[in-house]
Amino acid sequence: MATALQMRSLVSEQGTLELSLQEFEVPEPGPDEVLVRIDAAPINPSDLALLTAFADLAQATQSGTAERPVINAPIPPGAMRMLQGRLGQSLPVGNEGAGEVVAAGSSEAAQALMGRTVGLFGGETYGHYRCVKALQCLPLEPGTTAAQGASCFVNPMTALGMTETMRLEGHTAIVHTAAASNLGQMLNRLCLQDGIPLVNVVRRPAQAELLREQGAKYVVDSSAEDFPAQLTEAIAETGATLAFDAIGGGDMASRILACMEAAAARKMTEYNRYGSDTYKQVYNYGMLDTSPTVLHRNFGFAWGLGGWLLPIFLQRVGMDKVREMQARVARDIHTTFASHYTREVSLAGALDLDALKTYSRQATGEKYLIRPQQ
Amino acid sequence: MATALQMRSLVSEQGTLELSLQEFEVPEPGPDEVLVRIDAAPINPSDLALLTAFADLAQATQSGTAERPVINAPIPPGAMRMLQGRLGQSLPVGNEGAGEVVAAGSSEAAQALMGRTVGLFGGETYGHYRCVKALQCLPLEPGTTAAQGASCFVNPMTALGMTETMRLEGHTAIVHTAAASNLGQMLNRLCLQDGIPLVNVVRRPAQAELLREQGAKYVVDSSAEDFPAQLTEAIAETGATLAFDAIGGGDMASRILACMEAAAARKMTEYNRYGSDTYKQVYNYGMLDTSPTVLHRNFGFAWGLGGWLLPIFLQRVGMDKVREMQARVARDIHTTFASHYTREVSLAGALDLDALKTYSRQATGEKYLIRPQQ
Repeated sequence: MATALQMRSLVSEQGTLELSLQEFEVPEPGPDEVLVRIDAAPINPSDLALLTAFADLAQATQSGTAERPVINAPIPPGAMRMLQGRLGQSLPVGNEGAGEVVAAGSSEAAQALMGRTVGLFGGETYGHYRCVKALQCLPLEPGTTAAQGASCFVNPMTALGMTETMRLEGHTAIVHTAAASNLGQMLNRLCLQDGIPLVNVVRRPAQAELLREQGAKYVVDSSAEDFPAQLTEAIAETGATLAFDAIGGGDMASRILACMEAAAARKMTEYNRYGSDTYKQVYNYGMLDTSPTVLHRNFGFAWGLGGWLLPIFLQRVGMDKVREMQARVARDIHTTFASHYTREVSLAGALDLDALKTYSRQATGEKYLIRPQQ
Repeated sequence: MATALQMRSLVSEQGTLELSLQEFEVPEPGPDEVLVRIDAAPINPSDLALLTAFADLAQATQSGTAERPVINAPIPPGAMRMLQGRLGQSLPVGNEGAGEVVAAGSSEAAQALMGRTVGLFGGETYGHYRCVKALQCLPLEPGTTAAQGASCFVNPMTALGMTETMRLEGHTAIVHTAAASNLGQMLNRLCLQDGIPLVNVVRRPAQAELLREQGAKYVVDSSAEDFPAQLTEAIAETGATLAFDAIGGGDMASRILACMEAAAARKMTEYNRYGSDTYKQVYNYGMLDTSPTVLHRNFGFAWGLGGWLLPIFLQRVGMDKVREMQARVARDIHTTFASHYTREVSLAGALDLDALKTYSRQATGEKYLIRPQQ
């Protein structure tokens, strides 16, 4: 078949990032595979870590042509130790996307998808085409466009994964940080629908307002002076002993654990130097702040902090559960799991330096959609 | 019955620690209880947190009489926030001990212990007598003295709890910090006996020497310049993905997770920006360093850090398992689970200011035994 373009990210040993569009030969699908023409792919926070590699974009330069821009930017030495594993490797970018199946292998599963609009997950989606196993595709319902289904995997499955983790591990309510994000708003809708008490932690009054307008009952602003007291109160009311933290750096996880312990201590009748026996869990699933995590350990011994990653979670629950979750996403893609975009760009447009600086800020409500065929 | 003395620790709202010996009325045992005359009780690191409450002992003063000394010491403001739950409460000290059952309730279990020398756990052991449920006692084998059995609970059950946690959670080797401690040496003997690869992390060359003399195969000195390389090598050789950390503060947990990730990355064939999928777990079970825990998060997303506390673990595994573990401790109390003491003191002697300063340093090999009847 013809050649096509794919966005790639390269970190040199000298500490420089290079972003570019590279040609690749569009493959013929194997028996169990389908070839998807990517019509839409979102730029998620989880794409940015691979794409921009913590580079200092204020110092970035753009070269190349209008159709094939090239971005170069220096990477701070402190960030380089996290990138040792990828030095010198040109890596394809894009976690998810959607488009039409334009070629299919001989198997029944592959043939069944021919001509369908599907969502897909598994990397390399910032390009004109992507060849994947039929099993990696989520067939969208008739009438759902590629743009509507482009974000059918990362955020919806993460939101569902969070509530599923809650049930699996015996918790009954959730604390979520960076709660005004696209994912946060989605989790709020999901929890409202399923009757799960959710404590939304945001960083600004305007974000609190936004979530309240969307029906959120518990919203706590970490910039408020009485944040710990407010958070403890919301935790005591909801009984939340599980938190998902997108920030990672700093002491937010520590503060949440301390507030959970303070809420648990209200119910203790006598002093225990080891703290309460109420188990408190924080999962870190993002890296909005790449500085070190700091724990003050003023929350007893019944606690856990860990990484949470969607692929590892999906492996844990197994394929039947994944299919069940996906069916719900396909059904509710226009409501609970809908994503909205502030701007659509072409592949080249995504490597425009001004656009890159804008979407990599990860500002609340700002979300870009790549349209590779434009 | 007569009155007796009990060591108590009191933290005032003004930030002062007071240690003293207080009289109490020796109770009559209820039907399921026994009264133990405490003949020996060890001073463990886990006792010191309750006893000294992070007070600045360099500024401590001693008053009272020779038989009833009183210690006062100021507590740094930073430590006070961890002590909010105990302000104004006079707390009895001493986690474990051993002695003779001198009175027993009417139940069969209680009567069976009459006259026996037993180990016991459950607080308030730094005193002349302790009344406990018969179930809380571990009857020592004939010929085992109270001094030999005084440490039959905290360290032996913690060491066994660590290897049991390893099996329960699917790991096959262990990293242990502060490995030259009394507990560390015990864990080393247990792992040698059970064929479990153990990576001993110590802080000084002399401690490394000590453990090697005791047959330890993997000993890594964190003061060595190439500590990360040495630790990574030992982890790669043993396959350890579980660590127990007694330090708590600083970045030791982070360094261990990073070395585990480095060992796992050796087996990876392609770059994954989320790190390896090898799950790495560190449990913090002590507080040798009360400063904040710092995590650099350069170890992917498949990790967990949590608190580990013996009572919570014992609840998790259930009474049958606990009995099985205790039977092994009673059998091997003179070998694998033997403890050694550098000095014996009376109750008053334990509140001698010089002695207090010495044992609260928690120096390697220095361990005190309280003999309340002397």
